[in-house]
Amino acid sequence: MFQQFLKQSRTRVELALDTWLPTLSSDTTQLTSAMRYSACGGGKRVRAILAYASAESLGREAAEELDAVAAALECIHAYSLIHDDLPSMDDDDLRRGRPSCHIAHGEAIAILAGDALQTQAFQILSDDQLTLESSIKIQLIKELSLASGAQGMVLGQAIDLSSVDQSLNQSDLENMHRCKTGALIRASIRMGAIVASANERQLTALTKYSELIGLAFQVQDDVLDVTSETDVLGKPKGADEAMNKPTFVSLLGLEQAQKFAKNLHHQALDSLSDFDYRADNLRHLSGYIVNRSY
Amino acid sequence: MFQQFLKQSRTRVELALDTWLPTLSSDTTQLTSAMRYSACGGGKRVRAILAYASAESLGREAAEELDAVAAALECIHAYSLIHDDLPSMDDDDLRRGRPSCHIAHGEAIAILAGDALQTQAFQILSDDQLTLESSIKIQLIKELSLASGAQGMVLGQAIDLSSVDQSLNQSDLENMHRCKTGALIRASIRMGAIVASANERQLTALTKYSELIGLAFQVQDDVLDVTSETDVLGKPKGADEAMNKPTFVSLLGLEQAQKFAKNLHHQALDSLSDFDYRADNLRHLSGYIVNRSY
Repeated sequence: MFQQFLKQSRTRVELALDTWLPTLSSDTTQLTSAMRYSACGGGKRVRAILAYASAESLGREAAEELDAVAAALECIHAYSLIHDDLPSMDDDDLRRGRPSCHIAHGEAIAILAGDALQTQAFQILSDDQLTLESSIKIQLIKELSLASGAQGMVLGQAIDLSSVDQSLNQSDLENMHRCKTGALIRASIRMGAIVASANERQLTALTKYSELIGLAFQVQDDVLDVTSETDVLGKPKGADEAMNKPTFVSLLGLEQAQKFAKNLHHQALDSLSDFDYRADNLRHLSGYIVNRSY
Repeated sequence: MFQQFLKQSRTRVELALDTWLPTLSSDTTQLTSAMRYSACGGGKRVRAILAYASAESLGREAAEELDAVAAALECIHAYSLIHDDLPSMDDDDLRRGRPSCHIAHGEAIAILAGDALQTQAFQILSDDQLTLESSIKIQLIKELSLASGAQGMVLGQAIDLSSVDQSLNQSDLENMHRCKTGALIRASIRMGAIVASANERQLTALTKYSELIGLAFQVQDDVLDVTSETDVLGKPKGADEAMNKPTFVSLLGLEQAQKFAKNLHHQALDSLSDFDYRADNLRHLSGYIVNRSY
């Protein structure tokens, strides 16, 4: 059931991205190719899946409106990966098992493809073809912009860059990740819930869940950076260690980091205690995040 | 009167940017500094001014809602300048008479500041503090995202990059500029008009006006690139020529390019023939664009 849900969600968001991204034409070939190269056909699609599962926990089936939200989230995620991989940032040549966007398309086009993917997310959420009330659209755009910008994801990346060779304590490290990856994971859950007309109490519980799994996701990322192989990860093994970046493993040790991830997983399950069987995919997702091998 | 309007508009948008941009705190210092460095305290503020003047032509006085729109437009413009100046793009060290953002703050932070300024624009337009109906906010976000992304400004920059050493004909050159600078100028006028509840006929006329002055703006930019001095321009003189980029001057010659700009100005005035004295600032702006010396 859960594997089926993952597969269906990935198929849905892949199709949605294909629908919403600009199509190749003679005028736009290079830019559009780079956008599609990075946004389509790969990745775990965790953010899209979380949005679907969040809406489902409130009884809302996957539908076109959710596909648009999922595509917008994956556009933001893809843009952030393109820019993070740039030579002046993390300088990663490999992404999702393929050459990074700037290796495949050159640095200038990679920067522009990232820029345009960010814009695309807001274009999708404001499009007339997205059949949601304007007030809902605005709530979605507010969630996404707050999570992505100078109070969220971009701030996280800036703190991450400045943390090389620094020793952070656990609270600083958690804060960095709360911004860098946590904010968009939180937004994914909340945006799914907003489309599904969550009430205040439901939104609070789901937000709590999202914050716990967002942190667990990062802890497990740090664990995998030292325990998994490059060909499984789709990005270079030990990259954080090589750059002397603080991680949960460098801070807590491998065993304690793994224990911490499991603990966050159990807290995430607790946060869903008022939800019925329709939140089962969210429950499985929390387990999936701390047990995944890539 | 017109000079007073320019000055007031610049003061208003400067204050609005100061209000809407994240404030400096110990956590965010580097990123926020870079955002403010590039977005605040400089520039002609043409896009903000156009939004104010457009609303005014429909009888709508400058007000907080327009300040937010003006700030959002200038955030997008500032982000585009930061990214365009990067070493892998136009590699410009000087902007608005000061070191470019990547010279002052380093390349990584410059990329992130640009990213966050783009997000900020959409955050402003979806903020609860912006007292416009949701349906109007969505129209504004739709205008801005369509103008900025892969069908607009970013596409223009991609075409521009690929046009180095190419010979474009006038139609290709106009198309490039229609995307690169024209789209955001068009959006500035249309967004001002949307806030001022323009009817269909008014919006059509103002859109026509915006397309003419958008093109005139670029023609004059090309003229100034060869006739003005670096210290007046605030950016290196002859930069386009040095990079062997096609311009209206290289295509038409200096004299014909100047004539073309004047002709566009007169057409822009014609497009406002149904408007009363309240469109006078728009009329002056068209003249200002083709007569400016920087």
